[in-house]
This record gives sequence, C-alpha cells and structure tokens, in this order.
Amino acid sequence: ATPKFVATIPNVTVTASRDASLPCIVEDIGDYKVTWMHLNRVMLLTIDETTITLIPRFRVTREDPTTWTLHIRNVQPDDTGYYVCQVNMEPAINQVGYVQVVVPPQFVDEESS
Amino acid sequence: ATPKFVATIPNVTVTASRDASLPCIVEDIGDYKVTWMHLNRVMLLTIDETTITLIPRFRVTREDPTTWTLHIRNVQPDDTGYYVCQVNMEPAINQVGYVQVVVPPQFVDEESS
Repeated sequence: ATPKFVATIPNVTVTASRDASLPCIVEDIGDYKVTWMHLNRVMLLTIDETTITLIPRFRVTREDPTTWTLHIRNVQPDDTGYYVCQVNMEPAINQVGYVQVVVPPQFVDEESS
Repeated sequence: ATPKFVATIPNVTVTASRDASLPCIVEDIGDYKVTWMHLNRVMLLTIDETTITLIPRFRVTREDPTTWTLHIRNVQPDDTGYYVCQVNMEPAINQVGYVQVVVPPQFVDEESS
C-alpha cells in the first residue's frame, strides 16, 4: 500500500491572537515523511514529528498513526495563506489548507485623535 | 554570531540531461538547519545533510562546514525554476537561485514526416 490522503485539509478562518490547527490525514505512510510548509512565507515548518521552524507559535503533533496536526498558537496576520502538507513520494503528493486571519477592527478613542 | 549567507546562489543555465549544482554558503550555522526547497514544485528537497525528496536525481552534500550544495543529476525540464536555501532562524532567512533548463531542438527527419 502506498500513502494516500484520506481527508481534506480544512480552510479555517481564525481571529488574530486565537489558535488554529490543521490536520493532515495520511494512510499507509510507511517510511515516507510528512512535511508541513507555509506557502506564503515559503517556509518549512515541520517534518515528521519534528517542528523545524523556530517561530514558537508553530508545532506539529501526531495524535494517531495517520494524523499530523499543525498547531498555530496566537495566530498573527502574517500566518495568513496556504499551508501545504506534503508526502515525499515520487512524485510528491500534496494537500493544501488555507488560514484566513481576521483582525478585529480597532476602535479609536475619538477624543484622543 | 548568528547565521548569515556569505555568497549569492548562482543562476544556472543547463542543458537537459546534464548535471547542475547550487551551493548555499552560510557562516555560523550553529544549531540552525539549512533546507533546500524547489519553489516551482513546492517541494522540500533536503534538510541539513539529509536528502528528503525521493527523486533520485537530487542530493545534498556538505563539502565544508559552510557549504550545502544541492546537486541535480540528469536535469529535466520540470527542474526549471527557483531553488530556495533557507535557514530556520526567526524569521527564516532565504537565498534563491534559479535553474534554467535548455532543451536542445529536436531535429525531425523530414522524410519520415
């Protein structure tokens, strides 16, 4: 059996400073590796169960044999965009999720402006 | 001392089926990690001295403490594009090289067409 995605990565909308998580579910991973990348930053985030990025708000967990979940804590506007879960088959297979970060409107005290 | 790039990754033009190599030169890497990605395929290729992609034409070597060289053997048209060398600082630092693949013109035997 070769690895295959068995669910779609969700597109999530999250308010800035809240947390988000994106599950990547792969059956029959065997000896292949699962990586998470942030496309908009062109940044490798995680590989297997190891978090590579040093942005401490990112973390990967593997809850069960088939699920690699990318956790983003205290989401920031720069976290917006596409997240790619990749399995290093030949050719590589990808699934993509999207994080939309909502920044609440800032209410300015009119008297101070 | 924090990691820094001390040379620019070249842009190379290579004929299909020939080999290419892209050096990424980083001083003071410390405990940080150097990764190579192919932007056009959105594919992680290597991390540290480990080749992640299973496309056997790709390989990383570390000739000296400062140089991570991405080798591409038997270059194919799909290998065209931007290659990102990334150090997982916060924020990550990147340098980009470009591979242009030249496919020689195909001469068709006119009598057979």
